[in-house]
Amino acid sequence: MSATADRIRRSALRLFAKRGYEATGIREVARDAGLSLSTLYHYIESKEDLLVDIIRTSMSELRAAAQESLANAETPAERLAGLVRGHVTMHGRMRLDAVVSDTELRSLSEAERKGAVKLRDRYEQQWQEIIDEGVAADDFYVADPKLVRLALLQMCTGVAYWYSPAGDRPLPHIADTFAELALLMVGYVDPAMTESEARAR
Amino acid sequence: MSATADRIRRSALRLFAKRGYEATGIREVARDAGLSLSTLYHYIESKEDLLVDIIRTSMSELRAAAQESLANAETPAERLAGLVRGHVTMHGRMRLDAVVSDTELRSLSEAERKGAVKLRDRYEQQWQEIIDEGVAADDFYVADPKLVRLALLQMCTGVAYWYSPAGDRPLPHIADTFAELALLMVGYVDPAMTESEARAR
Repeated sequence: MSATADRIRRSALRLFAKRGYEATGIREVARDAGLSLSTLYHYIESKEDLLVDIIRTSMSELRAAAQESLANAETPAERLAGLVRGHVTMHGRMRLDAVVSDTELRSLSEAERKGAVKLRDRYEQQWQEIIDEGVAADDFYVADPKLVRLALLQMCTGVAYWYSPAGDRPLPHIADTFAELALLMVGYVDPAMTESEARAR
Repeated sequence: MSATADRIRRSALRLFAKRGYEATGIREVARDAGLSLSTLYHYIESKEDLLVDIIRTSMSELRAAAQESLANAETPAERLAGLVRGHVTMHGRMRLDAVVSDTELRSLSEAERKGAVKLRDRYEQQWQEIIDEGVAADDFYVADPKLVRLALLQMCTGVAYWYSPAGDRPLPHIADTFAELALLMVGYVDPAMTESEARAR
């Protein structure tokens, strides 16, 4: 991506996050990026392009994080912990992208919205399959697997809303803690834990 | 509240949720409510009044739900479960109010925002105190109480984003399931559970 295109993207992201997509005019984006409107139109065709790009980039980052964290995972517990770590890390690193993607799906045109929702559903389906797999393998004990998936995703997505790099918890610590919470939520008992440890809990 | 005031409130809520607060004009609110602009101004002084009212109402509903659920709770586990049930139920019943309150704090004027954030912080502090109390009583086993509070609140608030009264899970079932998940997250072991049951888990 060229430096100018990147600057436009950052301006759009900041303004959409601060005031909402609908309320942000394309002129403001140009002004914030220090460009004339006609220069801006060399890079994009419409304001919606900017939102589409933000949402697509978020989704592909998420999928890449999932891919990477699943690559070396051998059990359902390792896979779930990996998904959680990847999701939390991405939502901490790309907070504004995640929040805008999350709240401004409503603002996409029908066709774009459908495509984005399909990608999101496919990603969430991955989480569901890993939960179901853990239940089938008797590694997880879950009363309502669909509700656990919804609870987990919201808990992890929520990191984008409160995390700050200036805060007192480093992102890797948050990712690890959330992975542990996820395993508690699915009733996973680490087989490496001795029986007396399990009883002492 | 008069029927007209209520109609104005519903119109504002629907429009703010659909397009965002900044992007919604006061004329649109009047049109949606079937009123002239001058009639609308009999009821409110500014567009911000509408947002302030939505955010204040959400917060007082949440506090009332917390109050009610804590009234008969005797242990930290009962109190935490009660808070979760109250929060989830309010976020399912008043989805739009919750989403607008959650996303449009950014749009309040500085003074109003400060007041709202103070109320929210006080409410979240209640959650923290109950978690800390459970830890102090050795009822909860929590590695990082602050992160657990943040995880719990986002998980429960998230219900407003996915719940639908037309869906396949009734709200009381969701509230109960989330209360159980919360107790798993804080490492609570029900003392009524026999040792052999605990071991079989």
